[in-house]
Amino acid sequence: MNDQNTSFPHTAVVLVNPKFPENIGAAARISYNFGISELIVVRDSAPDHAAMAKMATHNAKHILEAMKIYDNLQEALAEFTIIIGTTARSGRQRTTEKSPRDIIERLTPDLQGNRLAMVFGPENCGLTNDELKHCNYISAIPTAEFSSLNLAQAVAIHCHELYYNAIFSPKRSDAPLKLASSFELEGMYEHVEQALVKINFLQENNHDYWMTSIRKFFSRTRLTSKDSQIIRGICRQFIGHQKNQSD
Amino acid sequence: MNDQNTSFPHTAVVLVNPKFPENIGAAARISYNFGISELIVVRDSAPDHAAMAKMATHNAKHILEAMKIYDNLQEALAEFTIIIGTTARSGRQRTTEKSPRDIIERLTPDLQGNRLAMVFGPENCGLTNDELKHCNYISAIPTAEFSSLNLAQAVAIHCHELYYNAIFSPKRSDAPLKLASSFELEGMYEHVEQALVKINFLQENNHDYWMTSIRKFFSRTRLTSKDSQIIRGICRQFIGHQKNQSD
Repeated sequence: MNDQNTSFPHTAVVLVNPKFPENIGAAARISYNFGISELIVVRDSAPDHAAMAKMATHNAKHILEAMKIYDNLQEALAEFTIIIGTTARSGRQRTTEKSPRDIIERLTPDLQGNRLAMVFGPENCGLTNDELKHCNYISAIPTAEFSSLNLAQAVAIHCHELYYNAIFSPKRSDAPLKLASSFELEGMYEHVEQALVKINFLQENNHDYWMTSIRKFFSRTRLTSKDSQIIRGICRQFIGHQKNQSD
Repeated sequence: MNDQNTSFPHTAVVLVNPKFPENIGAAARISYNFGISELIVVRDSAPDHAAMAKMATHNAKHILEAMKIYDNLQEALAEFTIIIGTTARSGRQRTTEKSPRDIIERLTPDLQGNRLAMVFGPENCGLTNDELKHCNYISAIPTAEFSSLNLAQAVAIHCHELYYNAIFSPKRSDAPLKLASSFELEGMYEHVEQALVKINFLQENNHDYWMTSIRKFFSRTRLTSKDSQIIRGICRQFIGHQKNQSD
C-alpha cells in the first residue's frame, strides 16, 4: 500500500440540489477520507449548517467551511476540464454509461494538470439529461436490481475508486494534455450552434437532437483547450463570411 | 456490464455494536443495492426501528425484517466459513491488513459453496483485536490520513468491491473447497489449546501470545471442514494418550 499523503488538489465533488444537509456533511467527510478537499453545492439556498456539520464530523469541518455554493451547474463547472456525471443504472441500458472504475482508469493519464469534477444529482431523481450534457463521462455504479444508492454512498464509491487507482496504478510519464474547460467548451458549443443555424443545418424540429449528438461526439474526443479555440475560430470565420455574403 | 440479477445468498454483513440505528438502516439499503440480503447485528438490545427504517428506505425494509440479532460475535459467526474483519488503517501498519479488493480477489475461488461474513465494528472504535481473532482476513480500505470512515460507507465500499468482482471477474471452474466454519474452527482451537497446555507448551505467561499466533497461522491456510476434523482427532487422541500415561 502506498503512502497516506495522496491527495487530489484539482478535484471537486459537486452536489446538485442535494435535499438533505446530512448527505452534504457525509459527502464532506468521505471526500476528505480520500484526499479530496473541494466540495461544491449547486442550490438556491444555503443548507442547514448544524445538520451538515454533524455528519461531516470535526475532522472534515474545514471542507464545509471552504464549500462553494452556486446558483447553477454551468457556472459551477466553468473551470473544470474533466467532468464525470453520475447516474443510477437504468433498466434501458444507456450505452454511454460506464462503471466509475472504467472511467477513472481511462482518464488516469489526463488527471495531472487538469481539473476533475465528479457531479452527483439530487437524492430522489439524480441528474437530468440536460445536466448530464455538461459531462464528459457518464458513470453508473454496477448494482443489483435495486439501483438507487444513497447520495453519500455514491460519492463514497467514486472517491474510493479515484483514490485506489491513484495509489495502485502505475504512474505514466506522458506529458498530460491541457484539456478544454467546461467554460471553453460551452463557448465553443455556442459558436458551433450559431454556425449550424446559419447554414440551416439546425432547424426548429431537430435543433436539440443534433446539438446533443454534437456534444456527445466532442465529449468523447478529449478536446484540448487549443482544439476548442481552433474550432471557435473556424466557426467565427464562417459566421462572418456568411454575414458578408448576405450583406 | 453483466446482468442485475447477481446476488449473494450465502453472504452476510455483520455489524458489531453499532451505536446509531441510522447506520444499520443505511447498511441494509446498501447491502441490498449490491445483492446481499442478510444483515446480522451483534448488540445487547434491539435498535430503534423507526430510525433504521428511515435510512433503509421502503425498498430494503425486508432486510431489516429478516435481520438477526445476537448477544455475541462468536455465536453470530458460527455458521460462516470465510470471515472478513474490517479495520481502519492504522498509523503503525499492521502487516496482516489488505485492501478489500485484494482480499476479495484472493477468495473468489472459495466464494461458491462457502458462507461469507463481512464484519464491521462500532462507529467510534472499530473491532477489537479479540474480535479480529475470529476473522480469516483483515481488511482496511486505503485512505488519506483521515482514515476513519462512516460505518455505512465502509459497508458500501466492501459490498461494491464484492459485487464488482462477481460481475467482472472471469468465472473459475475449479470445484470449490468446503472450508471449515467458524464453529468448527473454535472447537478445533479448544482442542489444540488443551493439547498444548497438556504438554506445557502453553503456560500462563505466553498462553495468549501463542494462541493468537496459532490462530493467525490457521487463518492463512484455508482449512477445510475435513482438515479441522483431522486436527481435532489428533488432539483428542493426544489428550487421551497423555491422560492414560499419567493414570
